[in-house]
Amino acid sequence: MRRNANTKAKVQADSEALALPELMFEELDGLLGYRLRRAQGAMHRDFMDTIADLELTQKQTACLWLINANPGVAQVSVAGALGMDRATMMAVTDRLEGRGLVIRKRSTVDRRRQELYLTPAGLTLLRKIKTRVAEHERRFKTLFKQGELEALLAALQKFQDRN
Amino acid sequence: MRRNANTKAKVQADSEALALPELMFEELDGLLGYRLRRAQGAMHRDFMDTIADLELTQKQTACLWLINANPGVAQVSVAGALGMDRATMMAVTDRLEGRGLVIRKRSTVDRRRQELYLTPAGLTLLRKIKTRVAEHERRFKTLFKQGELEALLAALQKFQDRN
Repeated sequence: MRRNANTKAKVQADSEALALPELMFEELDGLLGYRLRRAQGAMHRDFMDTIADLELTQKQTACLWLINANPGVAQVSVAGALGMDRATMMAVTDRLEGRGLVIRKRSTVDRRRQELYLTPAGLTLLRKIKTRVAEHERRFKTLFKQGELEALLAALQKFQDRN
Repeated sequence: MRRNANTKAKVQADSEALALPELMFEELDGLLGYRLRRAQGAMHRDFMDTIADLELTQKQTACLWLINANPGVAQVSVAGALGMDRATMMAVTDRLEGRGLVIRKRSTVDRRRQELYLTPAGLTLLRKIKTRVAEHERRFKTLFKQGELEALLAALQKFQDRN
């Protein structure tokens, strides 16, 4: 208890110290890459708070989502769709399988293919996630007028289409 | 050599396999958080390619940038400005100091404060980084018309201001 109180006091002191000298951000603040990273960081922190008690990463969540929308999807396709390399995708699938949320099945058509399916427990969890994500999305989408939001979504798409 | 050729062939095969069944993204693609993460991922990959030979992370780069713009800045202020926790900031500073790019000095005014300065080697490296970053930024900024870019930068700022 005492330790907690100390930590709180320390955080308070730090943010006061921070308020004092205004940092010069120089060109940094005008950089698109920097703004994008900070925006993503802000939304990511809110997302993690939103699903903290479910003990899932953003990647695991996206996998559950894609597998549910594409039952029997190849592991390699999910990896590609989410921009993950083979090793990362393997680790994510291992974790989801270990928790009984996903099952892997070797394809009967092409034995090199691993097909992915949600278990009933996976589907139940995904439904819970979707409700939370909807609230999380609303918190950020309401920062923008409808036209602004559409322009932003289109602009973000251009970063991906460039590849 | 042989191994490299095999890896390349494998990557090729994977992306062909990917092209086959069009994945259903369901609502995922309409999520602001998902689009933002993918956009940031695309720009981050390009950034890392841009400075790959300099062996720096994005956080380390931002630190060099801020320290140069604010000589003698408190370590805690840089952490706060970049949204890093105390432990992460400590690790980043250790790494930069170990490479002879940054020096820490205990403040003569407040002995609890660690002040940060770039070394001449740090400044030389930062100049190189800035040239590369300018090219990297140009590659993405040219995806947009001037008005679109301004709207995008303003929109991204709103995510941060929300906190």
